[in-house]
Amino acid sequence: MTSVASFFFGVVVALSCLSLQQLASAADPSLLQDFCVADSTSSVLLNGVACKNPSTVTANDFYFRGLHVAGNTSNAQGSRVTPVFATQLPGLNTLGISMVRIDYAPGGQNAPHTHPRATEILTVLEGSLEVGFVTSNPNNNHFTKTLYKGDVFVFPSNANPGAITIANAVFGSQPGISADILAKSFSLDVATVNFMQSKF
Amino acid sequence: MTSVASFFFGVVVALSCLSLQQLASAADPSLLQDFCVADSTSSVLLNGVACKNPSTVTANDFYFRGLHVAGNTSNAQGSRVTPVFATQLPGLNTLGISMVRIDYAPGGQNAPHTHPRATEILTVLEGSLEVGFVTSNPNNNHFTKTLYKGDVFVFPSNANPGAITIANAVFGSQPGISADILAKSFSLDVATVNFMQSKF
Amino acid sequence: MTSVASFFFGVVVALSCLSLQQLASAADPSLLQDFCVADSTSSVLLNGVACKNPSTVTANDFYFRGLHVAGNTSNAQGSRVTPVFATQLPGLNTLGISMVRIDYAPGGQNAPHTHPRATEILTVLEGSLEVGFVTSNPNNNHFTKTLYKGDVFVFPSNANPGAITIANAVFGSQPGISADILAKSFSLDVATVNFMQSKF
Amino acid sequence: MTSVASFFFGVVVALSCLSLQQLASAADPSLLQDFCVADSTSSVLLNGVACKNPSTVTANDFYFRGLHVAGNTSNAQGSRVTPVFATQLPGLNTLGISMVRIDYAPGGQNAPHTHPRATEILTVLEGSLEVGFVTSNPNNNHFTKTLYKGDVFVFPSNANPGAITIANAVFGSQPGISADILAKSFSLDVATVNFMQSKF
Amino acid sequence: MTSVASFFFGVVVALSCLSLQQLASAADPSLLQDFCVADSTSSVLLNGVACKNPSTVTANDFYFRGLHVAGNTSNAQGSRVTPVFATQLPGLNTLGISMVRIDYAPGGQNAPHTHPRATEILTVLEGSLEVGFVTSNPNNNHFTKTLYKGDVFVFPSNANPGAITIANAVFGSQPGISADILAKSFSLDVATVNFMQSKF
Amino acid sequence: MTSVASFFFGVVVALSCLSLQQLASAADPSLLQDFCVADSTSSVLLNGVACKNPSTVTANDFYFRGLHVAGNTSNAQGSRVTPVFATQLPGLNTLGISMVRIDYAPGGQNAPHTHPRATEILTVLEGSLEVGFVTSNPNNNHFTKTLYKGDVFVFPSNANPGAITIANAVFGSQPGISADILAKSFSLDVATVNFMQSKF
Repeated sequence: MTSVASFFFGVVVALSCLSLQQLASAADPSLLQDFCVADSTSSVLLNGVACKNPSTVTANDFYFRGLHVAGNTSNAQGSRVTPVFATQLPGLNTLGISMVRIDYAPGGQNAPHTHPRATEILTVLEGSLEVGFVTSNPNNNHFTKTLYKGDVFVFPSNANPGAITIANAVFGSQPGISADILAKSFSLDVATVNFMQSKF
Repeated sequence: MTSVASFFFGVVVALSCLSLQQLASAADPSLLQDFCVADSTSSVLLNGVACKNPSTVTANDFYFRGLHVAGNTSNAQGSRVTPVFATQLPGLNTLGISMVRIDYAPGGQNAPHTHPRATEILTVLEGSLEVGFVTSNPNNNHFTKTLYKGDVFVFPSNANPGAITIANAVFGSQPGISADILAKSFSLDVATVNFMQSKF
Repeated sequence: MTSVASFFFGVVVALSCLSLQQLASAADPSLLQDFCVADSTSSVLLNGVACKNPSTVTANDFYFRGLHVAGNTSNAQGSRVTPVFATQLPGLNTLGISMVRIDYAPGGQNAPHTHPRATEILTVLEGSLEVGFVTSNPNNNHFTKTLYKGDVFVFPSNANPGAITIANAVFGSQPGISADILAKSFSLDVATVNFMQSKF
Repeated sequence: MTSVASFFFGVVVALSCLSLQQLASAADPSLLQDFCVADSTSSVLLNGVACKNPSTVTANDFYFRGLHVAGNTSNAQGSRVTPVFATQLPGLNTLGISMVRIDYAPGGQNAPHTHPRATEILTVLEGSLEVGFVTSNPNNNHFTKTLYKGDVFVFPSNANPGAITIANAVFGSQPGISADILAKSFSLDVATVNFMQSKF
Repeated sequence: MTSVASFFFGVVVALSCLSLQQLASAADPSLLQDFCVADSTSSVLLNGVACKNPSTVTANDFYFRGLHVAGNTSNAQGSRVTPVFATQLPGLNTLGISMVRIDYAPGGQNAPHTHPRATEILTVLEGSLEVGFVTSNPNNNHFTKTLYKGDVFVFPSNANPGAITIANAVFGSQPGISADILAKSFSLDVATVNFMQSKF
Repeated sequence: MTSVASFFFGVVVALSCLSLQQLASAADPSLLQDFCVADSTSSVLLNGVACKNPSTVTANDFYFRGLHVAGNTSNAQGSRVTPVFATQLPGLNTLGISMVRIDYAPGGQNAPHTHPRATEILTVLEGSLEVGFVTSNPNNNHFTKTLYKGDVFVFPSNANPGAITIANAVFGSQPGISADILAKSFSLDVATVNFMQSKF
C-alpha cells in the first residue's frame, strides 16, 4: 500500500514487523561468511553498512534486550515506537527485517505515515485500536478495521509505482479518515479538517 | 526519496521517466519468448498482467503516439500528467519503466505526492520550475532546486524503510515548503498554512 | 543462517516474523492494483497464488483473528506453532512476510529445523527459552542464547550458498547442542546422542 | 529484447531513459540514509560506487545542467549521445535509471547495439526516425517502426537468457535490416551487405 | 559481460551452465508448494510457465536423459548445442539455471553471440578450445584464453547497462578477434574481414 | 527444495553447477566496469568481496585449471567435492554461479546436506548414482532417482519459506531414505536407524 495510515486508540501495545520488499545483499556465490553483522565502526560509506569480521561475531550480535519495557507516551501524539533495527541489533544488517513495539496512551495515535519500501504486519498484545491504509491514485480507498488483542493486520507495501497525491490520500480518501485523527496529526481544529475534506 | 514533492511554476513542459526499484518478471530460464506484452483481454488476475501470445505481437505493441500534444491544464492544480504506462503502451508490461509528459499552466503545480516504488528522472523541455523532495524521519530535509530548459533532476526512491510521517514531511520540512504551494495543495489559506508550519 | 536450530524451554509464548529473502511480485509498471490478495478459488497454478479482483477486496482480507489464543502443546515436542500465513490472511499473498505464535509447555522444544529462504525475528512474550543456530560448513559454529521476556533474537537467513551437512551441523557443532534436546528431537536416548556427538 | 538495433534518420532529437532490470542497492533495513550519492573520491572499489557522507549531500547532487544543448553530430555515424549517468549526476548512483539525449544529423544513425541489462524508452522531440529491435534465436524477428515527433517506443530488455547469435541477428533478421544502415555500421559497401544477408 | 564471443576449435566437448541474473519466482510467503514444475499443457500465458499441480509431480520432472550423446556437428559452424532447459527438464521452471553440452567438430566454432541476461560457466571435457569475450563501449577489450581438458572459464553477465555497439565489439575489439573466426561467422572472406577490422 | 539429500554410490564422477536464487550486485546504472573480480587483498569487509581495479583484470581472472583431476575419496564418506568458487576463480565474484566436481569411491556418498540459497544442477560423467531430495513440512516427500552417465538432475531451491524439521526430513521422509546411507552419515548402526525411522 502506498499511503499507509495507522490510527490507534486506547492503551494499546502492539508489535510490528517490517519487511523490505527487496533484500539486496551483495552476495558472493562462494562467500565464506553466513551473515554480515553491521560494523558500526567502519568508515566505509556503503548503501548499507560494512560487515564485522566474522571471527569476532558472537550470539550477542543477534540479540536485543528490552521490548518488554513500555515506551513513554507523554508526547503530542500519545504514542511511542521502540525500534529494533540494525542500529539496535547489528545482526539485522542486510536481512531486510525489523521489529518494533508501539505503545499508545488512551486516545494516542501514530500519525498518518508511509514506509517507503516496507510491508508491515502488526498484532495487538493489549487494548484495541483502529488501523487503516489508503490506496493510491485515483481511488484513494480507505481500508479500515478496529483491532482487539490477538488480531493481526497487514499494511501491504505497494506493487504500484503510480502516484499518491498526499492531500488527496489524507483528506480525500473514501471513506474519510476521522476528522479527530487528522486534526491531531496536522495541528488543526476539527472544523478546518471538515472544510478541507469537503474540498476533495 | 520518500515524500517526493514536486512544485512547478510557469508554462512548463517536462518529461519524466519512472523506474521501478525491482523488476520482478517471473522469468523462466528457458522461456521461448523475449517479452510479455500485456494482454488486456485476459481474465487471469495476476500481480501484473498476463502476456499476449508472442506470435501475435507486432511493433505497434511497443509504440505510443501523442507525447507532442500539450495536456489540458485547466484544472485546480494547473497541471496535467500525460502517462505512457502499460495501459497506453502494452509492451511496457513487466519492464518496470514508464514515461510521462507534464504540462503546467503559469503558477500551476503538481501537488506533493509520492511514487511508492519508483525513482523519477525529469528534464525540462520549456519554461522553468521549482522541484524538491523531502527525506524521511527524523530529519525531513527539503532538497529543492529551480530548473530551466535542459536541466535534469532525479527524485530518488528510498533505500530506507523507516517511517515518513506525512504531516511532518509536508509541514515540518527543513527548509519549509512554500506556503503558497501548500495552500493550493491542501485547499487552505496561506495564514492557516503558516500556522500549521509553526507547529512542527 | 543455514541450519537454524531453535530450542525452547519452559512455558513460553513467543512471536516470530518470517521474511522471505526476495519478494518477487511480478509487478507491472502501470499496474492499476495496489495489492494481490490471494484468490483461493483460482484454478490457475502459479508459483504463488492468483489475485482476487481488486474491486471485491475489503479490509477483512488484510486481517486475522486469534493470536491471543494459546496453542495446544500436548504433543511429543511440547510446542505448537500458530501460523499467520497467506492461507490464514489472504492479503499476505506476494508480500514476503508472515507472523507466527509459538507456545511451549515446560520442557517443550521446537525441534531443529531450517527455514529455506526466510529470516526469522523472534521476541519472547512470557517465560524464558534457549535459542540458537548453527553456521554452514566447515565451521558449524553454534550461536546460542537464553532469552527472557522482551528479548529479541534474529535467526539470519544465509548469504552463503555453500553446503550444510546435516549430521555435522546437528551432531558436530561447536559448541555442541544439548544432548537432551537432540535425544528428544531424534527419538534417541542421551547415551546414543553422546556417542554420535563424539564421532564428529 | 536482446539485439536492440536502433536506426535513426533525419535531423532528430530524441530523449531516452534507460532502466536497469534489477536495482540492487545493498539496503539495510534500518539504514539512516535515504540515498547513496556517488562519492567519486572513494578508493573503495565496489560493484557500484561508495556513497558520499549523507550530511554533505545537497540538491546539486541530484541535478544536471545541459540537455538543451545539441550534441555534435560531425562524426562517421552522424549522431551523438549526451549521457546523464551517475558520472554526470551523482545522485543517480544505485537508482538504476538514467537519461540520454541523442542527436542525429540528416542520414545519421546510431549503429546496431545492445544494452546488456537495460530497457530503453525513447521519445522523439524533433524530426522523424526509424527504430527497431531484433529478437533472440532462433527467430531473430525484426520489429521496426518509423517514429515522428511525440512518438514513444520501448526497446525491451529480455526475459530470455538464450543466445543471440550476432551475425544472425544483424544480417539474418526477418525482415532484414536496411542494407544502407548495415553498410554504414560495418564499413562495408551495400553489395557486400546484400551478399552477407543472402547467406542467412 | 556484454558481447560474449566464444570461439572453439578442435574436437571438443564442453559443458556449460547458464544462470539468470535474477530469479523472479512470484513466491508467496506461505506457499504450500516447494517448486513450480512447468505445466506444458497450460493455456495461461505468463512471463514464465504455469506450474503443474504439485500432487502430480514425480522425480522424473527433475530428470533429463541424454547428455552423454554427442551432438551432430555436420553444419556450417561445425558445432552443436544440446540444451537442458525447462522445455527438456520441466523442474527447471522458475529456477534460473540450465545446462548445455556443446560439441565441436575440428575447426568448428560457436559464432559470436550474447546471452542477454545469463552468466555462463564452462568446462572442457575433451579437446582444447579458444574462448573469449569482449567488454562494453568504449573499450571493447577482448579477454581470450585457450582452454584444455579440465579448465573452467566464466563468461560474466554484465553489471553495466551501457551500450555495446555490435560492429565495434566484433570488428574493433582490442586485441582483435581472429579474422578466420569472423570470416566463418559472417560468411565473408578473410580479406574483407581484415579490411573491416582496419576501419575500427 | 529444502532438505536436499544427495546419496551417491559406485565410482562416480559428477559435475554440478550451483546458482544463487538472487544475484544482488550493487550495480550502478552508469558503472564504468563490466565485472567485479574479487580482490582477495582488500581489507574492506562487505557482504561479498570488494572488486579488483578493472584495469588490472586479465583473462586469467576468469579461468581455473584442474577439474580433470580426480578428487581424493579416501575419507569416511568416500567422496570428494572439488569446488570452483570465487576463491578459486575470482571472476565469479558477484555472479551467483559456481561449479563443482564430485568424485565418489565405490559405496561412497555425499551425506545429506542443504544448499541454503542455491539450486543445483548435476550431470553424471562416469558411473551411476542414486540421488534424491526431501520436500518441506508437513509432507517430507522423498523424490529419488538412479542416474547413469549423461543423466541430468536438478535439486531445486525452495520457493517455500516454511519449516523443514531436520529429524522429520531425514528420518521420516516418504519413502524413507536408505538405512545404510543414514547409518554412514550419522555414525550409527543400521538397527538404530531402523528404530529411529519407525518413530516418525
